[in-house]
Amino acid sequence: MVILAEPQLGENIGTAARAMANFGLDEMRLVRPRDGWPSESADKAAAGALFVTQGAVVYDSMEEAVGDLTYVYATTARPRDMLKPVVSPQSAARQILERTSAGEGRSGLMFGRERWGLNNDEIALSDAICMAPVNPDFASINIAQAVLLMGYEWFKQGNKGSLGRKTEFDGMEGEGMGMAAKDTRPATKKELIGFFEHLEKELDHAGFLWPPEKRPNMVRNLRHMFHRLQATEQDVRSLRGIVASLSRGPVSKKHKD
Amino acid sequence: MVILAEPQLGENIGTAARAMANFGLDEMRLVRPRDGWPSESADKAAAGALFVTQGAVVYDSMEEAVGDLTYVYATTARPRDMLKPVVSPQSAARQILERTSAGEGRSGLMFGRERWGLNNDEIALSDAICMAPVNPDFASINIAQAVLLMGYEWFKQGNKGSLGRKTEFDGMEGEGMGMAAKDTRPATKKELIGFFEHLEKELDHAGFLWPPEKRPNMVRNLRHMFHRLQATEQDVRSLRGIVASLSRGPVSKKHKD
Repeated sequence: MVILAEPQLGENIGTAARAMANFGLDEMRLVRPRDGWPSESADKAAAGALFVTQGAVVYDSMEEAVGDLTYVYATTARPRDMLKPVVSPQSAARQILERTSAGEGRSGLMFGRERWGLNNDEIALSDAICMAPVNPDFASINIAQAVLLMGYEWFKQGNKGSLGRKTEFDGMEGEGMGMAAKDTRPATKKELIGFFEHLEKELDHAGFLWPPEKRPNMVRNLRHMFHRLQATEQDVRSLRGIVASLSRGPVSKKHKD
Repeated sequence: MVILAEPQLGENIGTAARAMANFGLDEMRLVRPRDGWPSESADKAAAGALFVTQGAVVYDSMEEAVGDLTYVYATTARPRDMLKPVVSPQSAARQILERTSAGEGRSGLMFGRERWGLNNDEIALSDAICMAPVNPDFASINIAQAVLLMGYEWFKQGNKGSLGRKTEFDGMEGEGMGMAAKDTRPATKKELIGFFEHLEKELDHAGFLWPPEKRPNMVRNLRHMFHRLQATEQDVRSLRGIVASLSRGPVSKKHKD
């Protein structure tokens, strides 16, 4: 799943679609494309990859665009000061394949707008940063090229995958992957965002997210922190239970029966 | 060394130059560019990589363009019936690096013209065919993208060689590891347990950890979940702030000053 944040030029969307087609990717999501959608210039630049452009789905916000996904990579050209794992395109491709094979929901790759990439709120919705190794003195890569590199690594992994190289993945589950529970599944972004909004509402009520000028940054930091949980759907329910319980305060025992 | 055979559009030459710059390649050779050289549209598309376009050298024939090289790869999208080794971009990059380190002369990568790639005479000048793995149903890659993939693999190899940062780019950074924290450190167990006890006390107070016979298991599950955060010392302070704030309930704003 490729998600483009506010792409400006139809031509870039089309070239990205072509790059996706080159590597067997066909699901594209667009968050508020500047010049509207569908786009003639995108179709033209797609050079035949119309099954990608014509199947693209447009969203009003990044929250909605990632709502049904369980793991999202934010692609950036430069490291950011954020407490998120940073992975190479190769690792991201491998991880996505692992997750898909394990039935752990769907993954997505976010790509930023032409001039200034992804904003901090978008990155806060991601689980990991994906950075391609590039010449630090000339690090600017356009969207279609970033999509191309990701698609290429994905296709390389996929080829391996289909050849049954399972051993490659054995023992690679690092800390934090531990989905030990069988009766649960990774939380979707929508569920996670539901928890965030619940928590933030209660924290507003309690006067924690204060003063107002610091609120956006505090919210982002909290979201970053909880993202690192790699929460399951069960975790999200527990967290919401905790927030509800703490906010409500003491309850007489008999109501719990 | 990147050699473009009879490129037609200046724009493609420029985009290829930009891709080269992204991966630290700066020597470009052009065999009979259709619209002459230098090219304004190439410089424009190079997006700042003028040190590549302005340093490009024009040749009258592919023979001359590869004259001083010792090993040349012909990049093609489709296999050809030729008795030449066929290698992936990754292998080509590795081989070039090995040859360079061993002082075995200079290598080059030939890229074909827009419509129909390299001709047989040009391919005959090569030592090996380099083919990127692509979707066979949508195999057409433009020149700049082909250059990008080669540059990317070259840079990945180069990084391994020169910086020895194999693990960083090779996918071994486990989930939750590669953190870029600057002003914090991992929480000690003592700090983490302090948070757990604080949380559990408040949850007991709120009647959440109830009934008593289920309490031990609930506590264990919560501790497991929060362990997965790989919390920093700063995270622990944030979490304790949240718990304190939610438990305390609404506070008039002036107390926060």
